[in-house]
Amino acid sequence: MVKVGVVLSGCGVFDGSEIHESVLTLLSLDQQGAEAVCMAPDIEQMHVINHMSGREMEGERRNVLVESARIARGAVTDVAAVGAADLDALIFPGGYGAAKNLCDFAIKGPESSLNPEVERLVREMRTAGKPTAFLCISPVIAAKVLGGEGVELTIGNDPDTVEGIRACGGVHVEKSVTEIHEDTVRRVVSTPAYMLGQRVSEVAEGIDKAVRALLSMV
Amino acid sequence: MVKVGVVLSGCGVFDGSEIHESVLTLLSLDQQGAEAVCMAPDIEQMHVINHMSGREMEGERRNVLVESARIARGAVTDVAAVGAADLDALIFPGGYGAAKNLCDFAIKGPESSLNPEVERLVREMRTAGKPTAFLCISPVIAAKVLGGEGVELTIGNDPDTVEGIRACGGVHVEKSVTEIHEDTVRRVVSTPAYMLGQRVSEVAEGIDKAVRALLSMV
Repeated sequence: MVKVGVVLSGCGVFDGSEIHESVLTLLSLDQQGAEAVCMAPDIEQMHVINHMSGREMEGERRNVLVESARIARGAVTDVAAVGAADLDALIFPGGYGAAKNLCDFAIKGPESSLNPEVERLVREMRTAGKPTAFLCISPVIAAKVLGGEGVELTIGNDPDTVEGIRACGGVHVEKSVTEIHEDTVRRVVSTPAYMLGQRVSEVAEGIDKAVRALLSMV
Repeated sequence: MVKVGVVLSGCGVFDGSEIHESVLTLLSLDQQGAEAVCMAPDIEQMHVINHMSGREMEGERRNVLVESARIARGAVTDVAAVGAADLDALIFPGGYGAAKNLCDFAIKGPESSLNPEVERLVREMRTAGKPTAFLCISPVIAAKVLGGEGVELTIGNDPDTVEGIRACGGVHVEKSVTEIHEDTVRRVVSTPAYMLGQRVSEVAEGIDKAVRALLSMV
């Protein structure tokens, strides 16, 4: 059975993993007969956002790994314990957690730093020639790690994020929510998901295409 | 556009809404062209469970409505503000939150009490002849409200829960995870979802059938 790592970043679009994108990723992997290996870094979230008001909940603290376990129904591993040898492919759902907890692109843009274990795992996958996929805002992680070799990515068309990807050395390709981009040289798939999506069904279509493309590269 | 209320109970299988079931419900509704109206009661959760360890997080407090907003991407309404006149149909995803926050069946079984606003809304839907659907453990809510008229339900085959439904006056019908039961007299649909499911794809199949059956009753 093909094993695909799913890197989560908490539980909720504004401070963690985008929940719909995460579940749709798990659904598509299971429908294609692949085994999902959910993981997240064992660190504190940048902050906790009240998802009704959009405001920070002062004084509240949550752990990225523990909150990610909500999406994984308990079965989640510390990303520090996972290497490229354990996986056939790797995928990152989006949500602000990808740009707040896995790196701090949401605050610092192209000057952001990556979580060291996330960076290590993406580099290991690239060195091993194993494919990776990045949904929604998470292509900024690929840009940070693989920008030096001109990785091609899509995050839809948001001007600031496109500029940030280019500043890292990445090449941005504009795509719609139901489309994907495949960088066949670096074996990287991306799709805009909720960077553009208005409806969960169209986000599902793009993610399903991304998962199929990822698995076809294994 | 057909409007379907989706009653959430927090965010996470062990203390709130089952996240996969909730997202799969929203996906199927959107794919069928129905509008989802997410809602939850504005109350404190029974408790907060660490989804990695399965243990209660002592001293932690979370609000059901605020946590449900994570699944709804912000667009969630207090169930107290919704009446049957606002909806064409109503659906309850599962997760322990349905049996801990919407009622306390997880603690008290058939002697449990219901959240008064949830009970009111289910009664209003029944009085208006509008269809309702209950996934996973949430049929215990239907048993509590509609057991007096012998409502037919499935939760799969868990003996204790089946006994609890019968004690409320409900009639239990054993079904597999990819099957549904339709009570055409009371216009109630149910499916076992993660009461039996081992894979997200089979849970998706049962939920999609339940959503289609619910919409066909509108």
